[in-house]
Amino acid sequence: MKLYSYFRSSASFRVRIALNLKSLAYDYIPVHLNKSEQKTPEFAALTSEQLLPVLETDHGRRLTQSMAIIEYLDETHPEPPLLPADSLGRARVRALSQIIACEVHPLNNLRVLKYLVKDLGVSDDAKNNWYKHWVRTGLNAFEAHLAAAPSSTYSHGETPSLADCCLIPQIFNAQRFDCDLSGLDRTMAVFQTCMKLEAFQKAQPSACPDFEA
Amino acid sequence: MKLYSYFRSSASFRVRIALNLKSLAYDYIPVHLNKSEQKTPEFAALTSEQLLPVLETDHGRRLTQSMAIIEYLDETHPEPPLLPADSLGRARVRALSQIIACEVHPLNNLRVLKYLVKDLGVSDDAKNNWYKHWVRTGLNAFEAHLAAAPSSTYSHGETPSLADCCLIPQIFNAQRFDCDLSGLDRTMAVFQTCMKLEAFQKAQPSACPDFEA
Repeated sequence: MKLYSYFRSSASFRVRIALNLKSLAYDYIPVHLNKSEQKTPEFAALTSEQLLPVLETDHGRRLTQSMAIIEYLDETHPEPPLLPADSLGRARVRALSQIIACEVHPLNNLRVLKYLVKDLGVSDDAKNNWYKHWVRTGLNAFEAHLAAAPSSTYSHGETPSLADCCLIPQIFNAQRFDCDLSGLDRTMAVFQTCMKLEAFQKAQPSACPDFEA
Repeated sequence: MKLYSYFRSSASFRVRIALNLKSLAYDYIPVHLNKSEQKTPEFAALTSEQLLPVLETDHGRRLTQSMAIIEYLDETHPEPPLLPADSLGRARVRALSQIIACEVHPLNNLRVLKYLVKDLGVSDDAKNNWYKHWVRTGLNAFEAHLAAAPSSTYSHGETPSLADCCLIPQIFNAQRFDCDLSGLDRTMAVFQTCMKLEAFQKAQPSACPDFEA
């Protein structure tokens, strides 16, 4: 398999974690988002969305959208499972994932921040406040979701799931933008636990071949 | 089942379509987003996310996040299926759904538009341009995705899917904000086809008990 990725892309990071958790080898194809390489004709020929990540299967099929890719990997390589066996559990893991992937990340990705500054003339301070506002709003919801259930080692239960694949890259981003993460006790405990695992460590930006300090 | 919904909430609209496609009866509990009823203590006690929709099962379990809810409905009430049987098809339907749910809708929902105006001091014109920009960017990707595959009656294949549950509410929103929808031939053909079905008609904002002209 090939993964088109950028070290700092949070959505790519999610898929890197999932591939590692399933011990699936892949070729890392770097696409430099900050140099707009996703807008080149070569990349546009690969995917209409001009977004990362793109996973190319061994049969040459190209898949987009990180959560869809991870569900595909989970269906085609079921061990270890990244979703629980029961429907209510699956609904909970998907909801936790979507708090990050539908409520936080879309507001804070690079193209949106660029639009705020370039098209809306927003100041750097206001842009950073925007970032912090949506991160904190989303993580408060995530924390409350966790706090409403009995204690668990990971976001859901005793093994890493799709929800952890989504959460951990978001915490990396939050730390990079110096967001206030105080009071998110359950969430940050999950983060610490995940980061002890090789699958998460090897997926992090600083471990990527295209990493830039 | 009970669905906490607002007639104009695009994410609630998705779930209303899915419930109708599966012929599942439900009680409609209106929550007036524009009056911030989702922030009342009564609603906060139901869900930590202060977002719609919320589906309460017959056993009193409350589910959040529209795509997670629809996948739950599809697992627990499999007929008619809202996802294809094959993993590649499922990946495609989920990716199409996520183009809407992760790339377009999060940027254009009510709380984000309010933040642009109130916190960033953006003018009404600039706010509307923002809206149109992200709708068109997302729908261009959706259209290109459809155009890359053989002709089909719905977004994927010959029966409505999760992707149509996500697409149709987004087109309603785009029309309300007077977005340019020209050149989106495959996408708009799917829209027209879906809107001939009772399941979509009965889910639309003007058919909701809390509709306001």
